[in-house]
Amino acid sequence: MIQKKRSLRRGVAVVGAGMSYFGMYKDRDCRDHFAEAFATMRASVDKGFDPDDIDALYVGNFTNDFFVGQAHWGPILADLLGLGPKPATRTEGACASSALAFREGVFAIASGFYDMVLVGGVEQMSRCATEEVAEGLALATFPEEGAAGFTFPGVFGAVAAAYFEKYGASREDLMNITIKSHTNAPLNPKAQFKASIADIMAAKVAKAQKLGKPVPQWADEKAFLSDPAANPVVAWPMHLFDCCPISDGASCVLLVGEELARTFTDTPLYVAGIGQGSGGGLTGKADLTYFEATRQAAAEAYGMAGMTPKDVQFAEVHDCFSIAELVHVEDLGFFKPGQGFKAIGEGRTRLEGDMPINTSGGLKCKGHPVGATGTSQICEVWEQLRGTAGKRQIPNPNLRIGATHNLGGTGGTCTMTILERR
Amino acid sequence: MIQKKRSLRRGVAVVGAGMSYFGMYKDRDCRDHFAEAFATMRASVDKGFDPDDIDALYVGNFTNDFFVGQAHWGPILADLLGLGPKPATRTEGACASSALAFREGVFAIASGFYDMVLVGGVEQMSRCATEEVAEGLALATFPEEGAAGFTFPGVFGAVAAAYFEKYGASREDLMNITIKSHTNAPLNPKAQFKASIADIMAAKVAKAQKLGKPVPQWADEKAFLSDPAANPVVAWPMHLFDCCPISDGASCVLLVGEELARTFTDTPLYVAGIGQGSGGGLTGKADLTYFEATRQAAAEAYGMAGMTPKDVQFAEVHDCFSIAELVHVEDLGFFKPGQGFKAIGEGRTRLEGDMPINTSGGLKCKGHPVGATGTSQICEVWEQLRGTAGKRQIPNPNLRIGATHNLGGTGGTCTMTILERR
Repeated sequence: MIQKKRSLRRGVAVVGAGMSYFGMYKDRDCRDHFAEAFATMRASVDKGFDPDDIDALYVGNFTNDFFVGQAHWGPILADLLGLGPKPATRTEGACASSALAFREGVFAIASGFYDMVLVGGVEQMSRCATEEVAEGLALATFPEEGAAGFTFPGVFGAVAAAYFEKYGASREDLMNITIKSHTNAPLNPKAQFKASIADIMAAKVAKAQKLGKPVPQWADEKAFLSDPAANPVVAWPMHLFDCCPISDGASCVLLVGEELARTFTDTPLYVAGIGQGSGGGLTGKADLTYFEATRQAAAEAYGMAGMTPKDVQFAEVHDCFSIAELVHVEDLGFFKPGQGFKAIGEGRTRLEGDMPINTSGGLKCKGHPVGATGTSQICEVWEQLRGTAGKRQIPNPNLRIGATHNLGGTGGTCTMTILERR
Repeated sequence: MIQKKRSLRRGVAVVGAGMSYFGMYKDRDCRDHFAEAFATMRASVDKGFDPDDIDALYVGNFTNDFFVGQAHWGPILADLLGLGPKPATRTEGACASSALAFREGVFAIASGFYDMVLVGGVEQMSRCATEEVAEGLALATFPEEGAAGFTFPGVFGAVAAAYFEKYGASREDLMNITIKSHTNAPLNPKAQFKASIADIMAAKVAKAQKLGKPVPQWADEKAFLSDPAANPVVAWPMHLFDCCPISDGASCVLLVGEELARTFTDTPLYVAGIGQGSGGGLTGKADLTYFEATRQAAAEAYGMAGMTPKDVQFAEVHDCFSIAELVHVEDLGFFKPGQGFKAIGEGRTRLEGDMPINTSGGLKCKGHPVGATGTSQICEVWEQLRGTAGKRQIPNPNLRIGATHNLGGTGGTCTMTILERR
């Protein structure tokens, strides 16, 4: 692992962030989603800005090639926003595509070449049938994994099984993650799933009563999640409620050179650390309970920031599956290997805990339009650090440092970003 | 158009460049091509280097999602070269994908974050049937163009028709471009088509004689290219010999911080200028005879370099179709609008002319594995500026400045790069 300390010749700041309402929208396309994200971002820039001052666009997208039969989204979105003939570049790192756009935007400004860059991501997945979406997502596995028939629930099921075996955790530990996501999401107006597990249970009871069918009874949320009729297995031990949904949406963030930041807002966020790593897939891995690429990304980001995991006060962590959140809070150093599930069980990652994770509801409930996720995670840190997260605001008056973690494929691409309010 | 002068806080140099043999290889895949390009690049680094010192990989690919059913190439190629867990990022800008990888590598080094970055591109197109390739490439058109049924020969046919109408040029002028490409390519061992037009004519005569069929007779190369039996129309006025082929291949370039360059070679090439622009497609364009995105890219690159078109001594120009080379030598400022076809007719763009264009054979004859093209153009400038281009070496002992121009889609993404030997 690289231990070399990285630094930028010019600091970079976030001065605006916005996302579309995530969900499944059969009547809207990528242009609609991105226009909505841009308008929301624009409204978030406290002192305003002139879109003509945007020097370049970076946009993350996984595979609209497959999902909607259209590639080459950079110029389409530049044209949509009237940015042409300024440059537009698409980045792809599977589900981490827009975290890469963010990073390239940072480099472009830090190099001194540009002063203001728009970075974002978009994906439209719901036009395809569910089985087609699974086929499209499988394009992001390693060739050997795809050839072996792995889809993502299978991959993360294998990770969970390995974790259970090594550390003695169980499905019940993962349920704590699901319940937390469903507790946070109703507080997030942009989230795709806005019902708590208790809400879902009550709705099922009401529906059965209305139809005159046998009324289900569950002692509590975990009993509900343990009921295979309510929460069927997808790829053991991943059940339905361990898996993020199919989503459409977009998000974007406005970056400027650090010295320009206060022209746009009195409360910019500074890019304290960026990190990225790559992984070689699961084939031949002796231990499936961690992701080397996440550890690399974290080492690079902490190194640049001159921080340790203890400095980070909250994080958005890539929870495409419940087990992903668990292994990544360990890989990011928030908890020691094999200790994450205990910390989660103690409620430490809840909104009111000492290390809140996925206050947005996470990919599980906020939704996961894959190319849009990376910069949507930045949006959540933006809201939290500026105290505008509303009902899901972390109850810590000294919130200053937040992080995001984005994963693509079977750990092929992982990123960590640390943002700071100074 | 942006006239703002751009600069980098740290200079960047090319210290190695290599490409695979371009062609159609049913028995080889992207890993094979990229490994070949990397080995060739490695051998080109005069004083050698340790691959462990590579900090990051950028790889351009258009849509292997479509062509081979595999996305997320960054980590696959990082893993192939043993670079993991270091980061790997894919860029996509249709046929300009690896020019974007090159630019992001420049930014990553110029920002101070990395010291040595490998940038390259790859595409495997020949696994698909020809009509499928056309469908895949059409993913790069603007949605409205695709919906209207445009494919690329149609798009560039329309551009040619508009150019003919406005400036009084004809198919004969485009033939000069085709003949030149077929004259240069036999001098390039890596080119896909190594036969001159005269060679092809002779082969057809020999074949007819052997089969006892009527022996075709053509007065000269233009007569051959005017014969619809020998050179059938694809989308008027684009005939078969106006169109680049379907290709497989890879290319890559090693970038380092300018101050490190002479550790690796006594003759590095310095990145004097980089430029990129975006375009909104053909819909609604009042004049099809130029590409705004190329003009933007050129303005940005010349601005950074502090140069004018007169300073550039030769260039690799994106000739996906013969007409593309013609309009782009004008957009890049080498010749005035409407004058390019005359200059070409006078032989000025030939190897021995005063402004050699596509000494490699160009996309037309070197081949066009789309994601690999951008950095393969850098490879040609590398050979020419260092005097290692062999039989196709430009006969100018004072060669110092060369440029590349790469185009994606219907002008959606265009780039210009100016390299200098100091």
